Amino acid sequence: MRLSRYFLPVLKETPREAQIVSHRYMLQAGMIKQATAGIYSWLPLGFKVLRKLENIVHEEQQRAGHLPMLMPTLQPGELWEESGRDNSYGPEMLRVVDRHGRKMLYGPTNEEMITDIFRSHVTSYKELPLTLYHIQWKFRDEVRPRFGVMRGREFFMKDGYNFDLTKEDALHAYNRHLVSYLRTYERMGLKAIPMRADSGPIGGEDTHEFLVLAETGESEVFYDSIVTDLHLGDREVDYDNVEECQAIFDEWTAPYARTDETHDAAIFDAVPEDRRKVARGIEVGQIFYFGTKYSETMGAHVDDGKGNKVPVHMGSHGIGVSRLLGAIIEANHDDKGIIWPEGVTPYHCGIVNLKQGDAEADAACESLYTALTGFDLEPLYDDRQERAGAKFGTMDMIGLPWRITVGPRGLKNGVVELTRRRTGESIELPPEEAVARVAAVYEGIA
Amino acid sequence: MRLSRYFLPVLKETPREAQIVSHRYMLQAGMIKQATAGIYSWLPLGFKVLRKLENIVHEEQQRAGHLPMLMPTLQPGELWEESGRDNSYGPEMLRVVDRHGRKMLYGPTNEEMITDIFRSHVTSYKELPLTLYHIQWKFRDEVRPRFGVMRGREFFMKDGYNFDLTKEDALHAYNRHLVSYLRTYERMGLKAIPMRADSGPIGGEDTHEFLVLAETGESEVFYDSIVTDLHLGDREVDYDNVEECQAIFDEWTAPYARTDETHDAAIFDAVPEDRRKVARGIEVGQIFYFGTKYSETMGAHVDDGKGNKVPVHMGSHGIGVSRLLGAIIEANHDDKGIIWPEGVTPYHCGIVNLKQGDAEADAACESLYTALTGFDLEPLYDDRQERAGAKFGTMDMIGLPWRITVGPRGLKNGVVELTRRRTGESIELPPEEAVARVAAVYEGIA
Repeated sequence: MRLSRYFLPVLKETPREAQIVSHRYMLQAGMIKQATAGIYSWLPLGFKVLRKLENIVHEEQQRAGHLPMLMPTLQPGELWEESGRDNSYGPEMLRVVDRHGRKMLYGPTNEEMITDIFRSHVTSYKELPLTLYHIQWKFRDEVRPRFGVMRGREFFMKDGYNFDLTKEDALHAYNRHLVSYLRTYERMGLKAIPMRADSGPIGGEDTHEFLVLAETGESEVFYDSIVTDLHLGDREVDYDNVEECQAIFDEWTAPYARTDETHDAAIFDAVPEDRRKVARGIEVGQIFYFGTKYSETMGAHVDDGKGNKVPVHMGSHGIGVSRLLGAIIEANHDDKGIIWPEGVTPYHCGIVNLKQGDAEADAACESLYTALTGFDLEPLYDDRQERAGAKFGTMDMIGLPWRITVGPRGLKNGVVELTRRRTGESIELPPEEAVARVAAVYEGIA
Repeated sequence: MRLSRYFLPVLKETPREAQIVSHRYMLQAGMIKQATAGIYSWLPLGFKVLRKLENIVHEEQQRAGHLPMLMPTLQPGELWEESGRDNSYGPEMLRVVDRHGRKMLYGPTNEEMITDIFRSHVTSYKELPLTLYHIQWKFRDEVRPRFGVMRGREFFMKDGYNFDLTKEDALHAYNRHLVSYLRTYERMGLKAIPMRADSGPIGGEDTHEFLVLAETGESEVFYDSIVTDLHLGDREVDYDNVEECQAIFDEWTAPYARTDETHDAAIFDAVPEDRRKVARGIEVGQIFYFGTKYSETMGAHVDDGKGNKVPVHMGSHGIGVSRLLGAIIEANHDDKGIIWPEGVTPYHCGIVNLKQGDAEADAACESLYTALTGFDLEPLYDDRQERAGAKFGTMDMIGLPWRITVGPRGLKNGVVELTRRRTGESIELPPEEAVARVAAVYEGIA
């Protein structure tokens, strides 16, 4: 993409309404624009990252054997009357009445609707196990929406639902989700720690939240520092293998890690003092096992192969996709702007032309552009008539991990400058070598 | 994908509520499930096609230089008060009041919101031309929703908006959209004819609708048959080239083609009689040029480089993405079910195992599966314990363009059967050759 043809309304002034850095930088970098309280438009740069996160979630869910589908944003009120949550959900639920006076609501979550789909079509244990998920816009009418996309009202969420014959099978689905979530966050460059959590209004027996450590996190968290040393890395995982998923679950949940809601000082004190950490965290996902709570209430039964009709065991599992953008920025920035992890960056490499209109500099930039594109990378070329300082400021703010700077002086010596955003380190090297280095970084990622 | 692990609730009975074939087949093939009147869940097979259509639209819009973004589903009421459309839109607009009593609405279209974004950020002609688009769920509260996804209430639409300094530039944007739409529909295996149309409530001077010929179409259409012989094919188009886009516009709009709204019998009668066609069509897209209607009302002005502040020239351009599924099925089916065009099929090739559990047949199917996957194709393998008739019935209903049938008898002679869904033609050939033929069909498509 050439900046002269892009829509990147970078703000010069600091937006006053933004209390946290991710909100401020998303506004300044021209990623979002508020439509009304807690509701945002995603401008091209923001949408590009959002779409990347969505694709990563899709890939990892499908790798785990979960099936993508899509439920609508609006739901009929009757389903929630049937489950009994119509009353309990309170004013956070956005209720709507259509032209015929029928009660609807903007879905804050989809347990009722997916259970309705299940019971309409599935009657036998032979069709289990089954996990369906979707990534769809949800609405929760927060009293005080704030922090940009971190606590918005209209938000983009992946929610998945498993249906299993037994509790044992459902707990495997739970573990499978935990593993797929760990991999999802790792690909996004995030260290997200599963923490034992409270089940809240969804109800349930087992639940873990995934928290990203950040000073601006809404939750206080208590953990054993060894949990932050764990990596899935390139480990091959067979998601059908019960023992393998259980072992990863055990590995990640054995170290103490809890939010303030479930914190138990007595257990925490048994952790060696140098490993006892108290910090703040941002919730980016949650997994639940809630047994037969909805299947009993809503009549989602299957034939168990022994002549009995039994309610299925269910769980629900969510990742806050739009909120993740905020969390990634909270965990990856400096005072100049965002620093995207390579796995989610909107463009792989910036190209800054120090002397736009200079025939040699222009040609060198074009040839870098072509070479990067040849490696299936997407460069963002700042081809505007702007001074160098403004170009660098924009690149730093929008946070592309790598930048190649091209100027007449360097070209005389046959070199361009390659700069790593995270460290600020620069080296001079021939253009082909700069491209090769950037391509090597993204091998297996882009 | 293996059918034993998929969620494909094919219905045996014919759904009574479906009046047209696309609605009936989408229900029978387990693609959608109604949530409430005019609102559908997209089950895995339906979602897979929807996502393919979405991706084709994205690719063709970006090829034309248009920038993807995403606006929210809910909009603040004030924007529509400002444009004056709050009153004129009537009961099709779904109005919502939030917990603080603020008026909102579920967007049926986005002229107001995009104009608001534009005026907040763009002040100079230097930032033009600019075309922004998004693909988002919309809501129109139809009195009588029917025909499944063809006339739903919650629907998925691409809507794009161009901002230009002059009428001339805006008309180039109009032509660019026409060309990108022609290419989009061709990739989907559709013949969509641009027809001069009425501008309706959006208002405007120039507008064309794109109609797919189908007996169940809602509009009566009148056209010169030579228009159906036109193809873009592999033609390379430079979307920046004003003359080239104009020439394609001229080529497609010179032949008479109008809907009943704009039909002019006197002109039509001048078409040679053997080329005069009256038929029915399904609207799958529309392009508008409406000048400064919104920019004047809402104050979207730019500096024109000569010291004047001038309102920008705008147009809006829509493709009904969810409705396209219905249109594709209306135009591509027989009495056994759907027949997907290769460009949009959810899976590229079915594999039917006539004797599940037979070691040789199972192994041959697995090796076909691996070989097809090796060509980046997605097979759908019916590995269920079902009789052949049921397996063929499912494959015919869900409409994959190609099927490979594997049975012990054929394997003894070293052959499998390759069947083309559209013609029913079958040939026997060695498995490797069947894979090679299928791969050749999809080369450049998948």
